[in-house]
Amino acid sequence: MTRRAVVLLSGGIDSTTTLAIARAEGYDVYALSVRYGQRHEIELERARAIADAFGVARHLMITIDLREIGGSALTDERIAVPKDRTPEEIGAEIPITYVPGRNTIFLAFALAWAEVLGAEDIFFGANVLDYSGYPDCRPEYLRAFEHMANLATRAGVSGQARFRLHAPLLLMTKAEIIRRGRELGVDYRLTWSCYDPVEREGEVLACGRCDSCQIRRRGFAEAGIEDPIPYAN
Amino acid sequence: MTRRAVVLLSGGIDSTTTLAIARAEGYDVYALSVRYGQRHEIELERARAIADAFGVARHLMITIDLREIGGSALTDERIAVPKDRTPEEIGAEIPITYVPGRNTIFLAFALAWAEVLGAEDIFFGANVLDYSGYPDCRPEYLRAFEHMANLATRAGVSGQARFRLHAPLLLMTKAEIIRRGRELGVDYRLTWSCYDPVEREGEVLACGRCDSCQIRRRGFAEAGIEDPIPYAN
Repeated sequence: MTRRAVVLLSGGIDSTTTLAIARAEGYDVYALSVRYGQRHEIELERARAIADAFGVARHLMITIDLREIGGSALTDERIAVPKDRTPEEIGAEIPITYVPGRNTIFLAFALAWAEVLGAEDIFFGANVLDYSGYPDCRPEYLRAFEHMANLATRAGVSGQARFRLHAPLLLMTKAEIIRRGRELGVDYRLTWSCYDPVEREGEVLACGRCDSCQIRRRGFAEAGIEDPIPYAN
Repeated sequence: MTRRAVVLLSGGIDSTTTLAIARAEGYDVYALSVRYGQRHEIELERARAIADAFGVARHLMITIDLREIGGSALTDERIAVPKDRTPEEIGAEIPITYVPGRNTIFLAFALAWAEVLGAEDIFFGANVLDYSGYPDCRPEYLRAFEHMANLATRAGVSGQARFRLHAPLLLMTKAEIIRRGRELGVDYRLTWSCYDPVEREGEVLACGRCDSCQIRRRGFAEAGIEDPIPYAN
């Protein structure tokens, strides 16, 4: 039997490339996306299209509402998404787009599903280089989660399974990620990165100015590849 | 300022007693309940009544759907809840009422909310004695979660906060828990334990036969206190 892996799929460049890597490594991919009240919910339509394009074994969409918990520009319309920041400003501190506890919640769902599926492998597109700040993207956090996961579950405790948390992009630059994804046949037109989409003449466009758009555009420029999506600015 | 604590409140004996302990220790209590597709959803009405009775600072009810993930008698109507098992049978293995990943998911939400509230303390009614089996109620699991939590969050990483996961009932018997709760003024009529409620003449009754009912009844008997709720059997 092919080994199963749960892949967290947000619909962005990193998670999509991670999915392509898991598949290239021979896993039967179970993609998990989370509708959490993000203002850029369009990323979930893209996640659906990406899962279809890759022909995953199953794509599970979980709905939770982190707006009730609050504390982030991504889930609270009253907090503005930062725009036009320089790379130095983006890297200087944990941004207001940080969502408290988000990755821990997502990984907890991935762990639960992995246990039910009999999967030992969870793939997560964490990356430390673009943002100096997100605490739940760092290697020490990922190791601590993996350790906890093996104590949390029937499968882990009984020795039936040994959960592994894979973060293949962890130390890659955005340009390296894009190049790797292209080698693996990723169609980046399907991916979505913008935190603050703009609607124009019935079309949803990336703003081009939030941190995430800027990191994406620099990544494509550095990779020497044209970014296939349109921008409002 | 009074210190804030997030308390996971399911509406059962253990979480209600834990809430009473947190309040007795002087915390400003923020109660968190989760509607996860459990067949005994009545426990959430009780959680609401308990939160009201204690006059908590806030009671947040999160909705997720673990039925989509499956793998447990508590979330899958097609899997029968075990009945009339002896204490030896109950303690012999991890029961089918174990919900994969549930406590990790609940604690992840508690952590997220704690970070937003500026709370450092999370209270959780885990207990190792009643069930020998639930892996995510053991001390080594709780320590691993606490360690991960301090690496997961902006507050933990910056040194602003040091998260502590309290499990004051961890090594207590059900009888000890009930006695402690009574000392603290808990009204156990409000609590709900049964996994498989029975409807009779418009009233919802505890079945009296599932593991959870049996553990509850033995606890009251051992404590020498009358269980104030009615049973169908």
